[in-house]
Amino acid sequence: MAYWLKAEGRESDIAVSTRVRIARNLAGMPFPHRIRGTNKVPKVKEPIKKAFLRPGMDFSLIEMKSLSPVEKTRLVEQHIISKDLAASEDGAVVLSPDEAVSVMIMEEDHFRLQAIKGGFDPEGTFEACRELEKMLGKEAEYAFDHKLGYLTACPTNVGTGLRVSVMLHLKALAMSGTLQSALSSFSRFGVTARGMYGEGTSAGADMYQISNQITLGLREEDIVKNISTVVKSLIEKERDVRRILYKSNKLEIEDKVMRAYGLLRYAKKINTEEAMEYLSWLNMGMGMGIVQPCTQDALYNLVMDIMPAMLAAEGGTAAERDKARAELIKKTFV
Amino acid sequence: MAYWLKAEGRESDIAVSTRVRIARNLAGMPFPHRIRGTNKVPKVKEPIKKAFLRPGMDFSLIEMKSLSPVEKTRLVEQHIISKDLAASEDGAVVLSPDEAVSVMIMEEDHFRLQAIKGGFDPEGTFEACRELEKMLGKEAEYAFDHKLGYLTACPTNVGTGLRVSVMLHLKALAMSGTLQSALSSFSRFGVTARGMYGEGTSAGADMYQISNQITLGLREEDIVKNISTVVKSLIEKERDVRRILYKSNKLEIEDKVMRAYGLLRYAKKINTEEAMEYLSWLNMGMGMGIVQPCTQDALYNLVMDIMPAMLAAEGGTAAERDKARAELIKKTFV
Repeated sequence: MAYWLKAEGRESDIAVSTRVRIARNLAGMPFPHRIRGTNKVPKVKEPIKKAFLRPGMDFSLIEMKSLSPVEKTRLVEQHIISKDLAASEDGAVVLSPDEAVSVMIMEEDHFRLQAIKGGFDPEGTFEACRELEKMLGKEAEYAFDHKLGYLTACPTNVGTGLRVSVMLHLKALAMSGTLQSALSSFSRFGVTARGMYGEGTSAGADMYQISNQITLGLREEDIVKNISTVVKSLIEKERDVRRILYKSNKLEIEDKVMRAYGLLRYAKKINTEEAMEYLSWLNMGMGMGIVQPCTQDALYNLVMDIMPAMLAAEGGTAAERDKARAELIKKTFV
Repeated sequence: MAYWLKAEGRESDIAVSTRVRIARNLAGMPFPHRIRGTNKVPKVKEPIKKAFLRPGMDFSLIEMKSLSPVEKTRLVEQHIISKDLAASEDGAVVLSPDEAVSVMIMEEDHFRLQAIKGGFDPEGTFEACRELEKMLGKEAEYAFDHKLGYLTACPTNVGTGLRVSVMLHLKALAMSGTLQSALSSFSRFGVTARGMYGEGTSAGADMYQISNQITLGLREEDIVKNISTVVKSLIEKERDVRRILYKSNKLEIEDKVMRAYGLLRYAKKINTEEAMEYLSWLNMGMGMGIVQPCTQDALYNLVMDIMPAMLAAEGGTAAERDKARAELIKKTFV
């Protein structure tokens, strides 16, 4: 169970979580891809240790090289680290006890500060991340240019280094084929949508990450505000389409939702893709008030917990994971 | 609910019902296809009325022309009348209150005497039918030839006019592809297998009617004994294959059974074909002890009750029937 999901967030029938990350680099230090494997790496970790591993603080530092492949994948599936960090020999992550804030070290940038909250909360999540950035800023001098702003390894992050993402369950927009047109109407806000596990991945349970593309030439507050505007509007659109679908195909929708529930509840083995499809139907059905077999956070946690590596952490073959997945799902509904 | 199914029969995990019919014709009277629409038809019905509609007897006579198309189809789906009788203007049926014994009048022959029992009981069902035949024999002189035996409109029924059928749920034999070879090994017994609703129909829930092909040159007792031998052996074979399947694919089988149960329990609409498929899995699962959401007779009744005309009796379109079917199934499991 991801602790940050335990708190019921706003609009949580459609908004799963809000994440904010801020990219920062040390002044006078080459970017990570230039210093990997050198004796400069420990210097990057120094300010982290000073800021977060002082006595009285509860953060923990996890070195990538100390983790097994399955442990790394689990952190990737929980969106705590990126695949790139998992693959890096020098990489590390600093985590708060509830995993709600964290810092990836030696990813694309020296520091990727991150905060996550359940539901829809761009402002609050940004505040949490900015606080983290300030804590680290007391120990580290950030690479900063008065014209460009904060400097980053990739030019797309230069300026604020800020990315705000909201994960939305856009089942009705996706199934009615109106998602793309809904998104393109927001293109002037510089906002993009990706599947649950990043660019090019399948949408997995119809979950989409809505995030800003532009980090330069805008104030942080405006980036947060833009995402907030777009996401609010997408949530409204999703609700509208759900309402229309339910009104015009009541029996069809109820049938799909209840069959999905029946299959999830009684299957003795189930693969990730199938489970995601049924959980997506079930979540929409819960939002529509058709059925309520568990809480919303339990369902969102399930969406993460049934990922292959989450289950692999307990060992076993793909077939054994399909069985464990079915058991995990069943347990959630009791 | 068909009353004759209420009594738990022998081997009822696999044997749904046993049916016996005896074809008889009046001596000195042309066969039905020669006298249809003539004033000789009432003469055929006379002995029926004398034998079964006397004061103190509970039988009822139903004329085909008094029934609506839906009412006729319902009787066909319950195996009480044939499609041919339903289509006949002169046809009628005499029914006992529990519908366990009946006589079709002016079908292919003047009289088709019928008895049905739940489970596997060729001997008992034959006795019940023979008693019916004797009752009618007191009022009617049967067409009989000392060399050939009882005379019938179709030569395939000449001799005893007897057909013994047992309806078996041969799911495991069917799915493992061994049904045909199992049946062909009994060809010397003159036994044939057909789908639930007769020759050329799809098997519907993997239900097969096992019946004798030969009516001539054998004593009634031998026909009954042959069917009994073949059916016992088929039941054993079905049990063996179930045991092997379950042992070698436990999780696979349990998954299929439980998913079928989940879908039947939660679907909001379901068509006949899909319902039959899931009920077939569920019945095998009940036989295997995997799940027990209702009694065996309730399940067999469901297999009949969800047929289109059974539901159509309450009116409505195909879509409304799919909904009514789902509700009926759900009710059975509560």
